[in-house]
Amino acid sequence: MKNMYTDEGSPLYPRLGPYFTDGRRRVDYVLAYQIQKPNSIRRQSSKFSDNNFIRRLRRSMSMRSSRAPLQPKEDPEIAAQKQRTDYHEDDKRFRREEFEENLLETGLELEKDEGSKIPGIGFLKIHAPWDVLCREAEFMKLKMPTKKVYEVKQGSNLVEKIRLFIHKVTTPLHPKVDANRPQSTLRALQFQFYTAAALLANGVYTSAYPLHDLLYEQWASYSVFYKYQPIGLIRKYFGEKVGLYFAWLGVYTQMLIPAAIVGVIVFLYGCATVDDNIPSMEICDPRNNITMCPLCDHACSYWKLVTACGTARASHLFDNPATVFFSIFMALWAVLFMEHWKRRQMRLNYIWDLTGFGEEEEVRLSSCVLHVSHIIVCVCACVCVCVQDEKVKLTCTDRMPAYLTTVVMMSFMILVTFAIVFGVILYRISIKAALHMSNYPVARSNIRATVKTTAAIINLIVIIIMDEIYGAIARWLNTLGEVPKTDKSYEERLIFKTFVLKFVNAFTPIVYLAFFRGRLVGRPGNYLYVVGSYRMEECAHAGCLMELCIQLCITMLGKQLIQNNLFEIGIPKLKKLLRRRKSDMEEEVNKSLQRHEKDHILGPFVGLSPEYMEMIIQFGMVTLFVASFPLAPLFALLNNIIEIRLDAKKFVMELRRPIAAKAKDIGIWYNLLRGLSKVAVIVNAFVISFTSDFIPRLVYQYMYSLDGTMHGFVNHTLSYFNVSDFQPGTDPLQPMHLGYKVDVCRYKDYREPPSSSAPYELSKEFWAVLAARLAFVVVFQNVVMLMSDFVDWLIPDIPKDISLQIHKEKILMVELFMKEEQGKRLAARDNHNQDNCTSLPGTSHWFHLTGENTCQCHRRSGCLRKWSQTPPET
Amino acid sequence: MKNMYTDEGSPLYPRLGPYFTDGRRRVDYVLAYQIQKPNSIRRQSSKFSDNNFIRRLRRSMSMRSSRAPLQPKEDPEIAAQKQRTDYHEDDKRFRREEFEENLLETGLELEKDEGSKIPGIGFLKIHAPWDVLCREAEFMKLKMPTKKVYEVKQGSNLVEKIRLFIHKVTTPLHPKVDANRPQSTLRALQFQFYTAAALLANGVYTSAYPLHDLLYEQWASYSVFYKYQPIGLIRKYFGEKVGLYFAWLGVYTQMLIPAAIVGVIVFLYGCATVDDNIPSMEICDPRNNITMCPLCDHACSYWKLVTACGTARASHLFDNPATVFFSIFMALWAVLFMEHWKRRQMRLNYIWDLTGFGEEEEVRLSSCVLHVSHIIVCVCACVCVCVQDEKVKLTCTDRMPAYLTTVVMMSFMILVTFAIVFGVILYRISIKAALHMSNYPVARSNIRATVKTTAAIINLIVIIIMDEIYGAIARWLNTLGEVPKTDKSYEERLIFKTFVLKFVNAFTPIVYLAFFRGRLVGRPGNYLYVVGSYRMEECAHAGCLMELCIQLCITMLGKQLIQNNLFEIGIPKLKKLLRRRKSDMEEEVNKSLQRHEKDHILGPFVGLSPEYMEMIIQFGMVTLFVASFPLAPLFALLNNIIEIRLDAKKFVMELRRPIAAKAKDIGIWYNLLRGLSKVAVIVNAFVISFTSDFIPRLVYQYMYSLDGTMHGFVNHTLSYFNVSDFQPGTDPLQPMHLGYKVDVCRYKDYREPPSSSAPYELSKEFWAVLAARLAFVVVFQNVVMLMSDFVDWLIPDIPKDISLQIHKEKILMVELFMKEEQGKRLAARDNHNQDNCTSLPGTSHWFHLTGENTCQCHRRSGCLRKWSQTPPET
Repeated sequence: MKNMYTDEGSPLYPRLGPYFTDGRRRVDYVLAYQIQKPNSIRRQSSKFSDNNFIRRLRRSMSMRSSRAPLQPKEDPEIAAQKQRTDYHEDDKRFRREEFEENLLETGLELEKDEGSKIPGIGFLKIHAPWDVLCREAEFMKLKMPTKKVYEVKQGSNLVEKIRLFIHKVTTPLHPKVDANRPQSTLRALQFQFYTAAALLANGVYTSAYPLHDLLYEQWASYSVFYKYQPIGLIRKYFGEKVGLYFAWLGVYTQMLIPAAIVGVIVFLYGCATVDDNIPSMEICDPRNNITMCPLCDHACSYWKLVTACGTARASHLFDNPATVFFSIFMALWAVLFMEHWKRRQMRLNYIWDLTGFGEEEEVRLSSCVLHVSHIIVCVCACVCVCVQDEKVKLTCTDRMPAYLTTVVMMSFMILVTFAIVFGVILYRISIKAALHMSNYPVARSNIRATVKTTAAIINLIVIIIMDEIYGAIARWLNTLGEVPKTDKSYEERLIFKTFVLKFVNAFTPIVYLAFFRGRLVGRPGNYLYVVGSYRMEECAHAGCLMELCIQLCITMLGKQLIQNNLFEIGIPKLKKLLRRRKSDMEEEVNKSLQRHEKDHILGPFVGLSPEYMEMIIQFGMVTLFVASFPLAPLFALLNNIIEIRLDAKKFVMELRRPIAAKAKDIGIWYNLLRGLSKVAVIVNAFVISFTSDFIPRLVYQYMYSLDGTMHGFVNHTLSYFNVSDFQPGTDPLQPMHLGYKVDVCRYKDYREPPSSSAPYELSKEFWAVLAARLAFVVVFQNVVMLMSDFVDWLIPDIPKDISLQIHKEKILMVELFMKEEQGKRLAARDNHNQDNCTSLPGTSHWFHLTGENTCQCHRRSGCLRKWSQTPPET
Repeated sequence: MKNMYTDEGSPLYPRLGPYFTDGRRRVDYVLAYQIQKPNSIRRQSSKFSDNNFIRRLRRSMSMRSSRAPLQPKEDPEIAAQKQRTDYHEDDKRFRREEFEENLLETGLELEKDEGSKIPGIGFLKIHAPWDVLCREAEFMKLKMPTKKVYEVKQGSNLVEKIRLFIHKVTTPLHPKVDANRPQSTLRALQFQFYTAAALLANGVYTSAYPLHDLLYEQWASYSVFYKYQPIGLIRKYFGEKVGLYFAWLGVYTQMLIPAAIVGVIVFLYGCATVDDNIPSMEICDPRNNITMCPLCDHACSYWKLVTACGTARASHLFDNPATVFFSIFMALWAVLFMEHWKRRQMRLNYIWDLTGFGEEEEVRLSSCVLHVSHIIVCVCACVCVCVQDEKVKLTCTDRMPAYLTTVVMMSFMILVTFAIVFGVILYRISIKAALHMSNYPVARSNIRATVKTTAAIINLIVIIIMDEIYGAIARWLNTLGEVPKTDKSYEERLIFKTFVLKFVNAFTPIVYLAFFRGRLVGRPGNYLYVVGSYRMEECAHAGCLMELCIQLCITMLGKQLIQNNLFEIGIPKLKKLLRRRKSDMEEEVNKSLQRHEKDHILGPFVGLSPEYMEMIIQFGMVTLFVASFPLAPLFALLNNIIEIRLDAKKFVMELRRPIAAKAKDIGIWYNLLRGLSKVAVIVNAFVISFTSDFIPRLVYQYMYSLDGTMHGFVNHTLSYFNVSDFQPGTDPLQPMHLGYKVDVCRYKDYREPPSSSAPYELSKEFWAVLAARLAFVVVFQNVVMLMSDFVDWLIPDIPKDISLQIHKEKILMVELFMKEEQGKRLAARDNHNQDNCTSLPGTSHWFHLTGENTCQCHRRSGCLRKWSQTPPET
């Protein structure tokens, strides 16, 4: 037969031929098997695949020990088995033919391809015609009475109608794979696959898989960005761990949609109300002739508050009552997201049959399950690791140095981050001072914008560079001396270290801006100086929120654009380009390569940690400082829509296919998310009460305002300074810069006037506002936490239909158990023990007849494995 | 043989004879069986026990439905079975004899008792001599290679030595049952019991149990109050649910010990430092001639601060820096307690083999597991309930009225509680005013003490009465209209409602005292009046903490003394006394009654909710307001030591034995505890910062004190009032009471002096102190929460040895699975399916030989049930 699968498909994606030789019938499923060959080739190929597996296994184990067992225990047995190979080859062929006849009988269409370029491997391509799919579907339904009983009725008619409507509306959002034909194909074939699995286990077939061009078309393409992901397929192809990552990413992205919408509305509310905002109106009103104290010593002069009009208006966009609402909304959103994910995870656990899967499972069963000999290797390896585990048990004192090194290094790295941030602050202060002193008016007019932007960009670059460095340091620290028990524990330690370093790196500048900048300034006449004569930075008049917002925006956008586009798209493309130029003539060779040879060229799969880490830092940006930047969810959403397909492409095309790893949950990442969403509550409380002017405005309105409005607020926030109190040498060089002599200038603080008994002391208003701010923090934190706990409690962790299903399956199990017990009792009484046993059908006949029922039982509990093969009636 | 078991034992506790007829050999275990009798008697007795079971089952089901199935499906079969009874009787006897011979062979000593007063039932009493126990222990160890491998090595030599030392020291604390002989007895017998279980399942024996005088001697006695409880025995006798309750109570009581010790130390610290306390020294110093404003309008006059000396000194006992430390300690203690319990629960789950037990399990398998026919009834009932469940599915609108009623009634009840508390306040105010106006100097001198004590006692009485009423209301509300799905859900709703009502009832007076009293007073010249002309209550000069403490003390002690001693000991004794007087001659009859007839007289088992509820409210007292009353843990500890034995006596002697119910955890109670320990953090933060004077003292010391000491603090907290500013009619009748004319009096508040521009306005100090108080709340709450989360994260939920054991058992399972798979594969190849099956031993022979190994596998996974009966080698 004609070999198709290197002739077709783009060079980017050398997919297996998706159609039969007639070019019309689609290949839905492929079964691969070893074909009778000259001994040398067969042995070589089988040896290769064996070695390959053992090598991978050994690699994964060499992390734990260099004394991994090179030979599984069963060697003599395997050797004995090999001698019987020839006999078995014939037997296998006979079984294959029998199975293929069965398949043909069910109406499936087959095509054999034994002339492929992979020596020794034959392919059986399977196509399921439409009528077969329909019939199978009908057939399966009729054969699943238990399954039918389990269907949960969804409330009243109205609810049902709404559900149907929603289903209709969202239909185009579902990937085709899940909706129509391919799904049924897979299901129908899956039905047959239970038989095939038995044959696989006996080595009759070597592997069975759907073609992954389904994944390519329905997932790893930007054109389907609006669709749900075919998670089931992803899991089948990459294993549960990767499946869970993409499911999580999907849930996160989906949950970002409402957050982004509300964020945009909040932002638009700020835009719409900017003209009604009394404080900014007062600032912009030239009739309020307010003279402000100079912004720097000596070089700067007095300035008029009206010049801060633009900043004040811009600040209102992010500093308005809607922001408070949005903070609360996002805190609850985070809880809802966690809950939604928990439910989704539970559902996937159920669908993927992981409910019985223990948490400490380290044997990668899912990757071995098809080959019994491999399982044995796995188990041996596992047992070895355990035995070895006890040998290398280290005492506390042995571990101390490693722990100490880690703690010291981590602290040092965190200090480095602080130092860098302080460096950027110094840069900002000194540049500002230099620009103020320069004689070019153009430079002076754009001082603020220039300084802000360059500083933010420097911060961004530092963050990106340090990110890479910290990743490497964390990896190095993790290998240092701590001997973790398990792979999982090793990974978790690494993740935790990397997370701490990257988190500190990403958020230190932001935390500084939000909570420290402008607070350690001192006051006119008694400024705080750093590194000689530099005054600490002040905020713009309307608060630091605006600058925080700019910093967040640049960090988020910049990080995503540079890390995603440059690192994840740009550099691989560049590499490919370079490679292509270097070896244009090699391309022909490349094309004719087999799949496994091509895979060798691809980059190795380095785990999901970098992907998760990127998303967690983004989640931090979205939740932690959302009070200052309501557009963050929108940016995150846009990024993630690209990110999903980007990661998909990367996993499908640019990396070697990872060993399928089983996982029940997303592990430590869930805890980190949960921690972040807890921290977010308190951070947002502080941002609203301390960084924004929300509380001072409220206090003014309800405690000091004469008419209950905001009129006079700006005047209230400004204290008086007598210019004669300037320390010598700090008074402005050009006191007449504004055109008149200034006796008293104003500055933003709550302090006593020069005329009071304690001039420039903190005033009663300061303490009142501080008390209000702190009261807000207490109330906000506790109310939001209470609401979060309430939401958490309200939404059950296990979806109702799933829990019902599990419950009913349990009853079924008990019923079966009862029947068997009864049967046994009867048998015992009549001394018919043996009859009971020999009545086991042994063949797949009964399995076939009530197959669905069996797989129903099988699915939920290993316990029923046996009973399901014994008809409960006997 | 001689019947012993009504001749011996106290009339209180008619235990089964604990010794053989020789009066020396102890009965360790009893097996009961039906003996061959005239048909009539046998039938009657078997019918009775059947009916009894069905009646109980029916009763437990009638909660759900009145249409429970009266007859299990298997009726015809059972009838058929009965015809074969005679044949089986012989068969059973033969099997019994065989089994007894086996027992005798192992060295156990037996005594048969077929002449007992229960017709148709024979007893086989078993005594295990010391040498047999030793040998069995040895033997078992030798036969448990897998078990031996699982033993976890406990760190280095030093750790091991410490462990041994601790073990030695705590040996007398362990009940004898667990430590020495009886435990081994049970274990050794348990080994045999696996065989007995099979015989039980076939009806050869009807029941098997250890004598419960073990429970009586080693548990339900005040003389063993210092010992651990024999939880395993309790669980065996009462089922997992009751076992978990006592285990929880034990853990709680045990954890109270360190809390009580630290609490006493904190209290002693207060006592020791009372003489060094500068504020109380200042108050007591007569040289500080401070004149205070009158405490009530008109009738009261000015008074000297030095008269408050006693209260100030007493306040220091509960209001000192150690209290802050103790609050943090108790918050962490609560977390540690929860963690410790989680681990204990996990361990019990493992030991009791509940790890596979689902959470939604409603079939009370544990109570049925010995009788196959019973299981069938259970399953039928369960299926019926499920079917019915779907029929009565109610929509939201159907449930609305019930929900509304519940919410309205609950709100109303809470309002009633508030009204009662307000009533007590009014009582306090009016009595105080009346006493002030009375002419008896004796009455006037003891005013404060009289009022406080009577009010607290009234509160206590109201709380106890309302507690009973609210319990009834919650039960009534729960039956109202909400149709809960399951028993568990019904119970949880009831618990939640009862908890809310009882909690509000118990804590409203305390919350009022802690946070509201003295805050809504107004100021001299502008007091706040309620109900006409009554001024709101003030606190004593040193704060309300003292009164809060008295209230807590009286509530806790009173509640525990009255509810425990009166309700739980006194009234039953009284009843018994009355009963005895009434029927002195009936006692003889009573003595000769059988166990089941006697049980009929006892009170029914009403569930564990009241016991738990009492403890949860106590836990609330211990954690919520611990900042104000460091002796609370001590009181709780003393109470609980009695409570455990009291409950034990009640369960063993005064109530009918409950149907053993299976439970994996303590359910909703855990959530309530967790909620309380979360609320405790914020409540304690508020008590320290707002109720105590801790923060004002700190603020004074670091912001206002001239020399950094507390000297001058009292003066600083007192504001000035010009007596000419009294509102007309509120100035004292006897202004010259102190012997001199008063122009300016002092009152405790931070307000501007009369001379300021805004007289009697809140001063800057007020706002500064308020800000400091709130800052303390924010810091305290977040630091404690962080520490709690850290502790939570630090301590693994599953004890290390248990998780290791589970892990290794899993590997064993995989190994067995592999072997079986391999065996099957080999068998399939050689077409020897049937041989594989018929090689099943069928008898208990192999089971016997490697019994421990089997039970090892069996225990962990139903999956291995089958394989364990098939030797893996074949």
